[in-house]
Amino acid sequence: MKAFLDKDFLLNTETARVLYHEAAEDCPIIDYHCHISPKEIWENIHYDTITQVWLGGDHYKWRLMRCAGVDEKYITGDASDHDKFMAWAKVLGKAIGNPLYHWSHLELRRFFGYEGILNETTAEEVYKLCNEQLHRPDFGVRDLVTRSNVETICTTDDPIDSLEYHEKLAEDRSFATTVLPAWRPDKAMNIEKTTWTDYIAKLAEVSGVAIRTFADLKEALSVRMDFFADHRCSLSDHALDYVMYAPATEQEVEKIFADRLAGIIPDDAAQAKFKTAFMQFAAGEYTRRGWVMQLHYGCRRDNNPPMFDRLGPDTGYDCVNNTAPSTQTAAFLGALKSADILPKTILYSLNTNDNAAIDTICGCFQDSSAVCKIQHGSAWWFNDHFDGMIDQLRSFASLGYLAGFVGMLTDSRSFLSYPRHEYFRRILCRVLGEWVEQGMYPEDLDTLKEIVRDISCRNARNYFRFASNI
Amino acid sequence: MKAFLDKDFLLNTETARVLYHEAAEDCPIIDYHCHISPKEIWENIHYDTITQVWLGGDHYKWRLMRCAGVDEKYITGDASDHDKFMAWAKVLGKAIGNPLYHWSHLELRRFFGYEGILNETTAEEVYKLCNEQLHRPDFGVRDLVTRSNVETICTTDDPIDSLEYHEKLAEDRSFATTVLPAWRPDKAMNIEKTTWTDYIAKLAEVSGVAIRTFADLKEALSVRMDFFADHRCSLSDHALDYVMYAPATEQEVEKIFADRLAGIIPDDAAQAKFKTAFMQFAAGEYTRRGWVMQLHYGCRRDNNPPMFDRLGPDTGYDCVNNTAPSTQTAAFLGALKSADILPKTILYSLNTNDNAAIDTICGCFQDSSAVCKIQHGSAWWFNDHFDGMIDQLRSFASLGYLAGFVGMLTDSRSFLSYPRHEYFRRILCRVLGEWVEQGMYPEDLDTLKEIVRDISCRNARNYFRFASNI
Amino acid sequence: MKAFLDKDFLLNTETARVLYHEAAEDCPIIDYHCHISPKEIWENIHYDTITQVWLGGDHYKWRLMRCAGVDEKYITGDASDHDKFMAWAKVLGKAIGNPLYHWSHLELRRFFGYEGILNETTAEEVYKLCNEQLHRPDFGVRDLVTRSNVETICTTDDPIDSLEYHEKLAEDRSFATTVLPAWRPDKAMNIEKTTWTDYIAKLAEVSGVAIRTFADLKEALSVRMDFFADHRCSLSDHALDYVMYAPATEQEVEKIFADRLAGIIPDDAAQAKFKTAFMQFAAGEYTRRGWVMQLHYGCRRDNNPPMFDRLGPDTGYDCVNNTAPSTQTAAFLGALKSADILPKTILYSLNTNDNAAIDTICGCFQDSSAVCKIQHGSAWWFNDHFDGMIDQLRSFASLGYLAGFVGMLTDSRSFLSYPRHEYFRRILCRVLGEWVEQGMYPEDLDTLKEIVRDISCRNARNYFRFASNI
Repeated sequence: MKAFLDKDFLLNTETARVLYHEAAEDCPIIDYHCHISPKEIWENIHYDTITQVWLGGDHYKWRLMRCAGVDEKYITGDASDHDKFMAWAKVLGKAIGNPLYHWSHLELRRFFGYEGILNETTAEEVYKLCNEQLHRPDFGVRDLVTRSNVETICTTDDPIDSLEYHEKLAEDRSFATTVLPAWRPDKAMNIEKTTWTDYIAKLAEVSGVAIRTFADLKEALSVRMDFFADHRCSLSDHALDYVMYAPATEQEVEKIFADRLAGIIPDDAAQAKFKTAFMQFAAGEYTRRGWVMQLHYGCRRDNNPPMFDRLGPDTGYDCVNNTAPSTQTAAFLGALKSADILPKTILYSLNTNDNAAIDTICGCFQDSSAVCKIQHGSAWWFNDHFDGMIDQLRSFASLGYLAGFVGMLTDSRSFLSYPRHEYFRRILCRVLGEWVEQGMYPEDLDTLKEIVRDISCRNARNYFRFASNI
Repeated sequence: MKAFLDKDFLLNTETARVLYHEAAEDCPIIDYHCHISPKEIWENIHYDTITQVWLGGDHYKWRLMRCAGVDEKYITGDASDHDKFMAWAKVLGKAIGNPLYHWSHLELRRFFGYEGILNETTAEEVYKLCNEQLHRPDFGVRDLVTRSNVETICTTDDPIDSLEYHEKLAEDRSFATTVLPAWRPDKAMNIEKTTWTDYIAKLAEVSGVAIRTFADLKEALSVRMDFFADHRCSLSDHALDYVMYAPATEQEVEKIFADRLAGIIPDDAAQAKFKTAFMQFAAGEYTRRGWVMQLHYGCRRDNNPPMFDRLGPDTGYDCVNNTAPSTQTAAFLGALKSADILPKTILYSLNTNDNAAIDTICGCFQDSSAVCKIQHGSAWWFNDHFDGMIDQLRSFASLGYLAGFVGMLTDSRSFLSYPRHEYFRRILCRVLGEWVEQGMYPEDLDTLKEIVRDISCRNARNYFRFASNI
Repeated sequence: MKAFLDKDFLLNTETARVLYHEAAEDCPIIDYHCHISPKEIWENIHYDTITQVWLGGDHYKWRLMRCAGVDEKYITGDASDHDKFMAWAKVLGKAIGNPLYHWSHLELRRFFGYEGILNETTAEEVYKLCNEQLHRPDFGVRDLVTRSNVETICTTDDPIDSLEYHEKLAEDRSFATTVLPAWRPDKAMNIEKTTWTDYIAKLAEVSGVAIRTFADLKEALSVRMDFFADHRCSLSDHALDYVMYAPATEQEVEKIFADRLAGIIPDDAAQAKFKTAFMQFAAGEYTRRGWVMQLHYGCRRDNNPPMFDRLGPDTGYDCVNNTAPSTQTAAFLGALKSADILPKTILYSLNTNDNAAIDTICGCFQDSSAVCKIQHGSAWWFNDHFDGMIDQLRSFASLGYLAGFVGMLTDSRSFLSYPRHEYFRRILCRVLGEWVEQGMYPEDLDTLKEIVRDISCRNARNYFRFASNI
């Protein structure tokens, strides 16, 4: 029997323990995709209560509380910070098998030094302990980042963003972590949204390009990409229903664009054509600039209309979309390859059934411009749990070259979520350790440590062309 | 090496053994969904041979025999009970890895006290032993139920059913198990079937409502739901191809209905509209009455036309249907939520690839009216095996709040299948035990036992609002 | 800690070790589906370097090298054999978790007696050692086959093939292995290909049947099937996008055929109709002749257009196609059953998500004409790795009668790939051993050994009606 969450948590073989403690543990974190606020980093904000930092915006926790039948008052409602925390602690205490159980306890140990169990009984004690520490001057969000040994952070930014705080952070020598913007142009692509025309107007203003045609839109985006590149952006991110391929002529796409400006929302087929053209343009620009293209898909968002009306997006009402034809994904990448505009690409599907399809698609488009140029991204969002990460790693390895994997990212809105990298690295070392101790790979610790360090940080550094500041 | 099927069967850790023997084992069985006959319970029928009770209607066993190349004569044909049993025993003897191997041996041990192995060699001995016992007066089906510690049984009943035997059983103080009806209105919904109009005529007669319109149909069903409610029904069940969402106006649905009465079978699109409207009506009624809605989908039935002609439905010719767009399921539940008519709902797909989609859909529609108001049902039918149950439990836990799970049901036509609850509970304790002994959850036995008891019986009691008679 | 790839490789229980060494190890290999050249067997060709035999045509290895960022020059380009091998060895050294790591080392041990590890450091030594042995006179491909204890080989042959080398091999008493042709009529079915009309012209010539109608095509194919039957062919193979069912009248199919001869490529719906009719015809012929029908599907081929232009098909640019409606597969087999023309059938999908659908479809169409008449084929191509084979075996067992499984095939282009049978058998014994040692099946070694021998070779012999020459 292993003690709960001890120093060898998840490390079930001697090889895993050696690999983790001697190779993975000290690697800096390259968090190349997250949703934290550069403004909050710049301001080095402090939180008043553990409720604010843990439950203020974390829709993973909200969902679990709702599953357990907690009243919305204690989730996003007007209950006090104290009462919300008590409600959360009660739920967490019985959340066996859920990744939040591990994440939360890792966070309590790593940031607050609390080595006990959080549940209904200990909730008051933990609440007090955490809040006391949050009030210390060295508990600003920059301190949390620094304490987590984070080398690079990529935020997620809209093309119209001023990148004001990235600029300020770049000039601030007092903060060792590099904070970079990442390009997420979903609002420009989602032509079916009622808010699209307003967004296009803003983009025109910010870019200085009057947008009357699709060609204008592309020019405006290109202007903004130059701006992002000036701020050291080197990767992009797209949220798609699925990676589609519906080729159309320039004229067709311009017609769809003109109709939309005239108020006609395109039907599904026209949307697919527009989005295909948009993505082809984007891929070409990324290739030219050496940027990485991240594609996140397989998600259906905002499924609960009354709660969407009340709370808006990203509040815990999303689910797996199980329709993503691999033939279209392969055809899309094939078209980019034919046009010689296939950038480094990372594919993430929320549907784990897509794992093998993704890994085999990646294998069709590799070349010598990068190791694992086309990659299967780390187990994403709902799949970012023990079983999901193991499945992703084993599929990647069985169907590709795991040693080239760029590894973990937090995809998080919270400054406390860096232990997810620890969680990932422990699982990585566990998987490798099992293979070794079952005689499926030689006990060559030098090579194994190289692989562990590569996946923990060095591959990401090379793939995204981040300067190492270590 | 563990001995085959000993007292610690499937319990591979000390924690699992403690949890099973000290918490799960003695919990009464709440069998909230099955297909046994209330008439047979009322009559307390006795079987003459183990062949009748085991092979008389069990299409799981029939399929396995056919896979092994047994002639239909020994399956559903005119071979003697003796010869059929011999054929079955020979197949079972080599059925390694099949759940029937475990179920059958559990049944032999728990009901007949046979501790050996059933195979070609022992078949005669087992046949004799079982038949002798079946001839004992205390081997009526009520005795089997009582010996299995079954607290509540929900049968599956058609809206036109008289519930005569439920009434008789309700009045019979001599039988401690509560036997309740469950509402299964598939015949009223399946508008494409040639038998639909005849069924509607019968429903009109039984309900006393002339059915000329969809509104009439809804009224007739509502009358029958009142009747079922009077007989303490608190849950429903639907068999769907997939959980679809094709909204239509009242007029459209009435047109489809009128056409059908006039003999025009609706096309696929019209069927989807009718069924969506039907399910929306049903959900509204269930919500109003506090009933649970069970949705079973992902099955293609009656795939072997010659054998269907010969044996009819439910004879072992069904398979997994792998088309069930999660977007429609989410949209359907979203529409119910918007209309404030989303009842407690349990989703079961025969396609295990849907596990994560289901678990994440559930997470979008929870509220404080119940713990795990929307649930992922226990591994269903073909998936009700060792791997399938583990997958369902781990997916439920990783993506939701396992402690709120209502747990196992038999879904069976046999009075001998209650050991499937034991099988489930052993697997549950195994999964929890592994997490604990790997340091993934604290060794807090009090909480763990609570969780085990909740999933074994208490959650079902609360969720379905069954009175406890213990 | 087990040593890497020792004699008990993958055998993690005592039961597994006993089963492998006492039952599986000595079984001859029945390689009922592969892509090796009968001409090369006849000629007993020798290879000059390990690069030629390993990297000359193995697109599995090419893919892995591309994933690792190797320049195409060292894969299919003009680099020297030496430099290509060095590039491969460097990649392989870090290919942890990939089946090529195991296959390659098994091949080095079994054929070349090299017990070390192949990586960047040892590459020169291994290159020298292997080449020296390849130059020995007893290293012709017949020697490799004989040394692998191969009883029967089925190659993959086109209807227009002369079977010249099969004839010669049949007459050659000096080679103990039986080499049989297998019927693969994809070129006749793929009506949408631009090369189809040329192919039909050749088929007409070879068969002596003028082909102006679909009826003519069927006659021509029937003539060639007689020819194949004369050469002891007893199985066929089809590559399909998915197993489709789009029934059409004879007239419709003749119209599609006539249009195609006139140069009109049929649209998707018409293709489906033609292919359905083609497969119905084929199934009828196979039934009449007692041939087995193998259906391989779930693959999207040639995804990288520039590399296809450069290297052609089967060069490492294929991926999983995740669209294969199980309803159509079931309907197709149901239609064959209704017409009493359902032959023995083996279903292989490249998409492992189809496992359970396949296993449950199989269960719908069994009869007493064969054990497991309809089978789920061994984990195919990309899935032919540790996890993929375990998944296939466990799904087969959970949903069917594993004891009737015909087991492994290489599907390979290489004369060195017979150790994949060893790899499969070790995994089989591992899975069975775990069940036994966990108390899930009795420790009845006689029965277990029977099952292991059946799956290792005897089931295939019986199912395909191969004469045993042992």
